[in-house]
Amino acid sequence: MIILGIDPGLATMGYGVISAVHGNFSVIDYGVVTTPKELTLPQRLAQLEEGVTELIQTFKPQNISIEELFFSKNITTGIPVAEARGVILLTAVKNLGDEVYEYTPNQIKMAITGYGGADKIQMQHMVQALLRLKKVPRPDDAADALAVALCHAQTSRLSTGFKIR
Amino acid sequence: MIILGIDPGLATMGYGVISAVHGNFSVIDYGVVTTPKELTLPQRLAQLEEGVTELIQTFKPQNISIEELFFSKNITTGIPVAEARGVILLTAVKNLGDEVYEYTPNQIKMAITGYGGADKIQMQHMVQALLRLKKVPRPDDAADALAVALCHAQTSRLSTGFKIR
Repeated sequence: MIILGIDPGLATMGYGVISAVHGNFSVIDYGVVTTPKELTLPQRLAQLEEGVTELIQTFKPQNISIEELFFSKNITTGIPVAEARGVILLTAVKNLGDEVYEYTPNQIKMAITGYGGADKIQMQHMVQALLRLKKVPRPDDAADALAVALCHAQTSRLSTGFKIR
Repeated sequence: MIILGIDPGLATMGYGVISAVHGNFSVIDYGVVTTPKELTLPQRLAQLEEGVTELIQTFKPQNISIEELFFSKNITTGIPVAEARGVILLTAVKNLGDEVYEYTPNQIKMAITGYGGADKIQMQHMVQALLRLKKVPRPDDAADALAVALCHAQTSRLSTGFKIR
């Protein structure tokens, strides 16, 4: 199964594409989609949609896994990320129907490290180990997106007989 | 000129369609687009996109005016609204290109009542008066959307020679 993991963002959206076969995970691609600050918000959202569509057409994932947003503070920064996430979810569901999954930051940490309080460094090293990469994937947004993809791979492998949500 | 005003929301999105000709405003239609809580978030966003597309196809607005979000607190409630707003902006820009305008709550109050601290009742009565309606438009989300449309009509009429944003 090919899984596209997405770490939502307006300026920078991380993506990670993995293959998951019987508990064996391998990386297919990872990187970021960026939108320039010079454009208006609607124009940036349209660029983001194009980027997500292109990823889906290129890698033909069976499942898309998207991180949920959690803001403890700084809602002003959070609004554009949430607006971007709406566009990402829409593009995902229009292409993959019900095969779109959402995970909270805590669920992702639990699935990757077994510990909900894991920090960024621990997470990145587990992502590297699970995907047998020579070094930690860069930039951070791409590493986060690989973690979201791995979370879905782990969760759907372990869940026998119940739907994720 | 036909203007579609939108008050963003996931469960309930208000819309108001007005005609603005040389400072004369008249109402064409107003109401709400709703999405059921039983659906998943991606499904609701897809329904919202369909609703906005249908409004554009039905009323063929030349401009779309969308309220900006402002959260002083309760970010948890705000995330789905921002996700919905991203989908609304995307649908607007894909159909109308650069003719998509955003206004803050304060700009809308200033344009309608001349006073940034106007309350909901004052706003609704000014919307009623400007559009020569027999009663205050209901529900509130539709009245808010008419105010967003009127704000754009007033602002673009008064601005001579400079682009709104």
